[in-house]
Amino acid sequence: MRFTAGGDLRFSPPNGHSPIASFTTMLTLFHYPVFAGCRFIRLAFGEYGEDLALIEEKPWARRKEFLTLNPAATLPVLLAEGDIPVIGAPVIAEYVDETRGIMKREKRLFAENPMDRAEIRRLMSWYLEKMENDVTRHLVRERVLKPLIPGAEGGGSPDSSAIRAARANIRQHMKYTNYLAGTRNWLSGSRLSYADLAAAGAISVLDYLGEISWSDYPAAKDWYVRVKSRPSFRTVLNDRIRGLPPVSHYADLDF
Amino acid sequence: MRFTAGGDLRFSPPNGHSPIASFTTMLTLFHYPVFAGCRFIRLAFGEYGEDLALIEEKPWARRKEFLTLNPAATLPVLLAEGDIPVIGAPVIAEYVDETRGIMKREKRLFAENPMDRAEIRRLMSWYLEKMENDVTRHLVRERVLKPLIPGAEGGGSPDSSAIRAARANIRQHMKYTNYLAGTRNWLSGSRLSYADLAAAGAISVLDYLGEISWSDYPAAKDWYVRVKSRPSFRTVLNDRIRGLPPVSHYADLDF
Repeated sequence: MRFTAGGDLRFSPPNGHSPIASFTTMLTLFHYPVFAGCRFIRLAFGEYGEDLALIEEKPWARRKEFLTLNPAATLPVLLAEGDIPVIGAPVIAEYVDETRGIMKREKRLFAENPMDRAEIRRLMSWYLEKMENDVTRHLVRERVLKPLIPGAEGGGSPDSSAIRAARANIRQHMKYTNYLAGTRNWLSGSRLSYADLAAAGAISVLDYLGEISWSDYPAAKDWYVRVKSRPSFRTVLNDRIRGLPPVSHYADLDF
Repeated sequence: MRFTAGGDLRFSPPNGHSPIASFTTMLTLFHYPVFAGCRFIRLAFGEYGEDLALIEEKPWARRKEFLTLNPAATLPVLLAEGDIPVIGAPVIAEYVDETRGIMKREKRLFAENPMDRAEIRRLMSWYLEKMENDVTRHLVRERVLKPLIPGAEGGGSPDSSAIRAARANIRQHMKYTNYLAGTRNWLSGSRLSYADLAAAGAISVLDYLGEISWSDYPAAKDWYVRVKSRPSFRTVLNDRIRGLPPVSHYADLDF
């Protein structure tokens, strides 16, 4: 519950001395590999065949230049055209749809009509907020970050009761994913959408950590195999956490 | 961190036996008066001059019909055209913009260009997620809900350390609001937008509870007086919590 924006509350676009050299027209994403929302955005750009310059940011270090871009100190942050920051996975997803998705016709990751868009947004929020708060961020904090980061920045021994509580919640989320995958072609309907990529962003983090008993969720497994086999997923399957190798089937397309 | 969707994970639009009689064409909002996101949506419809049928829902009671509409058991939920549920304040806001806002010209509560839209979305998320998690939901839970609701549904004695932690965070959020209000005409720029209504939704809840020291934030106060004076705000100023009257200046337009 600690307020995480620190002392510098000004929000101002970078003044031309951006931390990114301007010799490239590639967009830049500040991300951290095991955050669900960051994976979601990498997958979305991957689906559209657009390369991103990736900068690994450790938000707990509270780097001053990063806080100037995003006083909330959250990830991901996209430096968009003009190096103006676009902040937060759902906000970036909307921006990418408005500037790119609308030109993609049947490859668009968002729907055309308002009710279908609402359903995709509901599921983005389910996986990136609800599942995040019920499960993902607790397991990432306790199992990945605490052992990695200095005590002064929030590191320390994992809290086993937080791990237990998060694990108890995984089952309901996977049952729900299994229900969706069993009744629809993709999670939000007939077409691959942001809903699938947001869900896969979160679930791939938990899968890396070996937290998912796939045999209990056959329809979800079939759906995840399909998402995982897409070329956009390769970069995510190559992510490695120092000192914490993935579960053995993590990068297998057939597991 | 308890998983809140309960056993019934099916998500299906109501089958015609909706809890709402169909003699009206008014849209229906399931809400609870002291939730920031619910206030935000009431304000948005108010700005567009559209009446809503309001149903007060107590999500902690886990009413079965409500869980069928929204397995996440969160508020607000809008029953839109065709009685299909649209779930969550930011998702409802996007839906309202796509079905109504785009016709409102200079009264539209959203911007036209993608970067300005991203800034409005960033601020919606700031007030409805970050401030919610840092401050609002803790004070609402401890000061409003726990005394009201039965022990079996999560009621009980307020946790004074949670109240203290939330109060310590208010200051940074109000400083940030004061900074925005002091450098822009409205919080996201030159025009009233969803950013103002989301912020006012959250801040009005804290103000009801007497948690804001307005004299420390003169620019934020000036901004809040302007928002509060709008006709759309009247219904929010009339909200009363049983057994917990608002701070004396709550409904004063000049305080």
